[in-house]
This record gives sequence, structure tokens and C-alpha cells, in this order.
Amino acid sequence: MEELNIQASTHAYSIVIGEGIRNQITDYFTNSYSSIWVITDENVAKLYLGDVLETLSDFHAHHTILPAGEQTKSIDYYNQLMTEAIAYGLDRHSLLIALGGGVIGDLAGFVAATYMRGIDYIQMPTTILAHDSSVGGKVAINHPLGKNLIGSFYAPQGVFYDMETLITLNDREIRSGYAELVKEALISDEAIYRSILTTNLQNLPPSITQEHICSGIQIKAQVVEQDEKENGMRQYLNLGHTLGHALEAHLGYGSIAHGEAVAIGLLFALHVSESVFDTTLPFLQLKQWLETNHYPLHSLTGDQQTILAKMKNDKKNKQHRIQMVLLEQVGKPIIKQMTDEDMLSYLSSFKRKLVNK
Amino acid sequence: MEELNIQASTHAYSIVIGEGIRNQITDYFTNSYSSIWVITDENVAKLYLGDVLETLSDFHAHHTILPAGEQTKSIDYYNQLMTEAIAYGLDRHSLLIALGGGVIGDLAGFVAATYMRGIDYIQMPTTILAHDSSVGGKVAINHPLGKNLIGSFYAPQGVFYDMETLITLNDREIRSGYAELVKEALISDEAIYRSILTTNLQNLPPSITQEHICSGIQIKAQVVEQDEKENGMRQYLNLGHTLGHALEAHLGYGSIAHGEAVAIGLLFALHVSESVFDTTLPFLQLKQWLETNHYPLHSLTGDQQTILAKMKNDKKNKQHRIQMVLLEQVGKPIIKQMTDEDMLSYLSSFKRKLVNK
Repeated sequence: MEELNIQASTHAYSIVIGEGIRNQITDYFTNSYSSIWVITDENVAKLYLGDVLETLSDFHAHHTILPAGEQTKSIDYYNQLMTEAIAYGLDRHSLLIALGGGVIGDLAGFVAATYMRGIDYIQMPTTILAHDSSVGGKVAINHPLGKNLIGSFYAPQGVFYDMETLITLNDREIRSGYAELVKEALISDEAIYRSILTTNLQNLPPSITQEHICSGIQIKAQVVEQDEKENGMRQYLNLGHTLGHALEAHLGYGSIAHGEAVAIGLLFALHVSESVFDTTLPFLQLKQWLETNHYPLHSLTGDQQTILAKMKNDKKNKQHRIQMVLLEQVGKPIIKQMTDEDMLSYLSSFKRKLVNK
Repeated sequence: MEELNIQASTHAYSIVIGEGIRNQITDYFTNSYSSIWVITDENVAKLYLGDVLETLSDFHAHHTILPAGEQTKSIDYYNQLMTEAIAYGLDRHSLLIALGGGVIGDLAGFVAATYMRGIDYIQMPTTILAHDSSVGGKVAINHPLGKNLIGSFYAPQGVFYDMETLITLNDREIRSGYAELVKEALISDEAIYRSILTTNLQNLPPSITQEHICSGIQIKAQVVEQDEKENGMRQYLNLGHTLGHALEAHLGYGSIAHGEAVAIGLLFALHVSESVFDTTLPFLQLKQWLETNHYPLHSLTGDQQTILAKMKNDKKNKQHRIQMVLLEQVGKPIIKQMTDEDMLSYLSSFKRKLVNK
């Protein structure tokens, strides 16, 4: 077991990473609860809900199983969950458990943040990708016009990461999760970046994954402790997301995995950075690694104007100008305000570079 | 002008009370803003929106006019406002102004709390009742199964109370607002309580209203500074609301004014308190004052079981037991957990006492 502690503005909480945690989750409860509500999706329910409910057998426990996928992070499901919470008679002394990936964590977390003005919740991430979203208290749902546009900052009571639940991930989910690990390494730690880039995702020893996840969470935890509300350095975590979010919105949520879109966005950020700072960054090395590991680099379709319009819906923008995270070098992120003209030109040159062998 | 300062957990903010504030609102802005969005209702818009927009003429200002009434505090209007915010291109550096009564303040406040995970907002209350809801950072929308069940704690950047906007209130709105002033006096200050009970609401000098509002806000401010998240003494502000909320839900939101329902709830709280503490409280005096001022005491209809069921949806309850604020004496509130049997019996004896002359 590895344990990290995070100091949020409202309270401190633990992140515990290890094997078999789902079978002993009650050991980590920090309060007594009137009832417990587990929210999960249909894929995770088949595999791990039974274990969790068994551990909760001494409690008054309810559960809700939602469809898997980004479409579930909608105001309709949010409203449905509120109705269920009331129907179950949940009160302010209830605990919500988000058992699943980022979609479940974000949606259930936003329900916890706003049901009766806030109840306790814990995150039990079951994907690699969710190492990122489960830490730091960002919770949200999507609006048809943009991702995560409705949400809050609301820290969990704890994050409990059972490494055993990762063995059932498919290749796409592994790719998607690793993109955020690459991002964390790129903004802060060249050694981890090198370690990841020597890893073949098709043949991944669990111990290595745990090591990479622990590093990623450590980086994320340091950032959000210093800037919980994203007024400064937390924005660095947006590396790769300007294009990533735009691409997801353009292709339709769920038709490309979040991390796959971010991976293309990371490569784009390296491309722009090389030009802005007139420097050489490991663009080709990253492109090669992404290709080896079957990231869908061909997914960057749509004309530049369409992609630009989607980028401008990003909530990090200021006065309709795109704020983009760039790298002066690996481990040294910086935020630059970009003109529309520059963005169009970079998109165009990036597309050309993608098809070059 | 009177000014009070409140220390919320996230930041400090001012409450300014005086005449003509709507014509100088920009003097109170504490940040520079990329754009401003005024949310109001159709009644207030006719009277005061023009003045406010004129004051904002140097800014990039949008406005939205919603239907008046409790039905507007719904997830549908919430969602509609989110869509407008995105369509207007509002970013994290925008300011939202809630111009209106409690419905507008609560709904617009919840939009501000959750649009892009939180933007700045200010409250410009235009009713007496809203002196209560505009202070303390509670924001919410209703769920068909219960009032304010979806919401957050999210402090405004300021509360700017233009006393001139109160002259257009009708009798029902004055009654509704005064019920919360009576409540604040009952939980903390016998002198103010006596002062209010000697006031005839049909003939109300503006200077007296301002005095009562300032006292009410002072009481509320003291309470929420000490217990922002309602873990302790903030619950005292719930005096009269256990039955009040149940009655509103039973009769249908909007068919009885919030404060009218609370007034009946206050009288009920005195009735139960007299019995629980075997003491004499000013029940008859309050009943007489409510009758003189045309509070609809006859509205307590429905059988006891129906009312009890509605009371049990209250988010202050613990493990399905009703938590009721009672008074040991005027100025000395206390929370008691009530059994269902006792509540049914008190409701029954209260109804009998209401019809006695």
C-alpha cells in the first residue's frame, strides 16, 4: 500500500494505492454514516460492484448502475441521480462512493457536491485515466456545447485506488490513461517522461503501472495543493487539453477516448512550443511512441476553422483569446495567449507533420 | 448608507444598505470583469433593470429576464441559463448580478457557483424577504420532491441592497419578508422582536423597514460567520421552516408565499416549545399580530400524516428523524429530535389552537 495526503482548502484527505482495497473499503471511512450510496457504471458493476457491496454489508447501502460512457455525464443523468438520492432518503450524513472511471467520478462527485449543498464522497477509480480526475476535487458534468462546463471544486473524503481493478482494462483504456501520465511527466519530470516512453503499453507489468500512477498522482497532488482553484499553476495540467477537448467535442464525446484526444493535443503542444520558443523538443520521439502504441493520430480531422471554434469554448480562455499551455523545455510549462491566426497556422502545419513518416 | 462586512470561508465581502444603490453599482465592484450578466425576473425588470443596465453602460453587459415565481427555481431554467452563459461567451472573469428576490438570488447564485466551476456574483435583493437569502452564500434550486435540495455554499462578492426598490412591494411580499425578520428576532433578540410586533405592516415607514432589515442581516451575518456550512448554530435559522417548507411543498410552491408559510411554522414552533419545555411563550401575541397583518393562518390544511411526510423530506433531518428548532425562551433556540408520534400530536393540537379565538 502507498499512501499520500492532500491538504484541500476545506479538509485533508488520503490517497491510498494498493491491491485488494475494494474488499476493505470500510477501513478507510473517516466518519460514521447514516447510509451509503455506490454509483457505478454497467461495465464496472459486472466486475467489482459485488465485492464492494459485500464489504458494505454492515451498512444501509444503496447502489445505482449507469450506462458506461461520456454521454452519461449529462444534466439528465445528474437530475435522475438527484431524484434517486431523495427517493433513497439519503440525508446530509450519507456517503457517496464513486466506483469507476472519470465519468463516474466527475458525475457522482458533482452530485455529492450539490445534493443538499454537499455530502461526503470518496473516489474509487477503476481506470488508469481516473488517477487524474479522482485527485484534486474537480467535479463536473458536460453541456452539449462544451465539456465540464457545469461543475464545482469539491474535495473527496479520500481516494482509494485498487490496482487489481486495472487488470480488466482494454488497450484503448490503457492508452487513454497513459496520455495523462505522459502529460504529468512532461510538465514536471523528465526522468518519469523517459521511463514512460521506454514502456510498451501492450506488455505492461502491474508493478510498473503502479509506479507510474504513483508518480502521476504525486505530481498532480503537488500542483493542486498549491493552486486548488486553478488561478495559476494548476492550469499547467491543461497541457494537451486545448486541442484535446476541441477534438472530443468535434468528433462527439465518446467516439474518441479522452486520453487519446489529449495525446494528440500533447503532440500539438510540443509542435507549437518548438516554433514559439525556437527550440527542439522530443516531438518525433513522442510521435513514434504514440504510433507504436496505436494512438489514433489520424483522428485529427475537420477543417482548421471548425477546430478553432471548438477551442474557443474552453473555460480556460480569457476574453475569447485561447490560453495555451506550452513547454519551454520538458518540465518547464508556461501559458501563452494565442491569436486565432497563429492557431490556424499551427493546426495546418501540425497536420502536415502528422502524416510525414 | 450602512455597511456590514462578512468573513466567508473563501473571502470577505460587504453588505451595503441604502437608497439609490442600483444607480451606482459599479462603484462596488472589487475586480475588473470581462463581461457582466444581469439575471432578473419580469416584475423586477419592468421597474429596475433599466437603471442597472444604464449604470453598466461602460461594460460588456448581457441580461436575462425570467418568469417571476418559485417555479423558476428549477433545473430546467438552470440548464437554460447555462446555455445562455455559453452562448454569451461568458468566461471565468465574468460577473453575474442577481437582481431580484430570493428566487433569482438562489437560482442565479447556483448558476454562478457551478458555471465553469464558479464565477463571481453579487446579490442585489429587491424584496424584504431576500435580506435573508442574499446573505450567507446558500444557493440552490428546487427539486419536484423538495425545496432547495440541489445547491451549494458559495459566497457572493457583495450584497447591495437598494432600499428604494422596496417601495414597489405589495402587501403579501411585505408580510412574507417580515416573517423572516420575526424569525431572526425570535432566535436572538427580544427587543427587536418587541419592536416588530408593535409595527403595523399596512403602514410601514421606510426608515423602520431599513432598521428592521439591518438588524435582521446583522443577526444572520453573525450566525453564518460562525457556522457557514450549517453544522451547528446556523440550523437555528431554520426556526419555523420545518412546517414552513412542508406547507409550501404540500400546497404547491408559489401558492403560498415562503414567508407566509414560515410565519405559520414560527407559530407552530412556539406551540411545540411551550409544551416541550412546559413554559409560556408569546404564542397568543404572535398569533394576534399575524392575524392583524393578514397572514393566511387558515392555509394549514391537509391531514397530519401528509404534512408529516413532507416534513421528513427536510434536508436537516438525520436518519429520517425530524430535527426541529425550538425556543426555550425568546432568544434561546435549541434543536430537538422529534418522534413521528409527537409531531402528529402537536400538529393536531396546533390546528385546534389556530381556530380558537
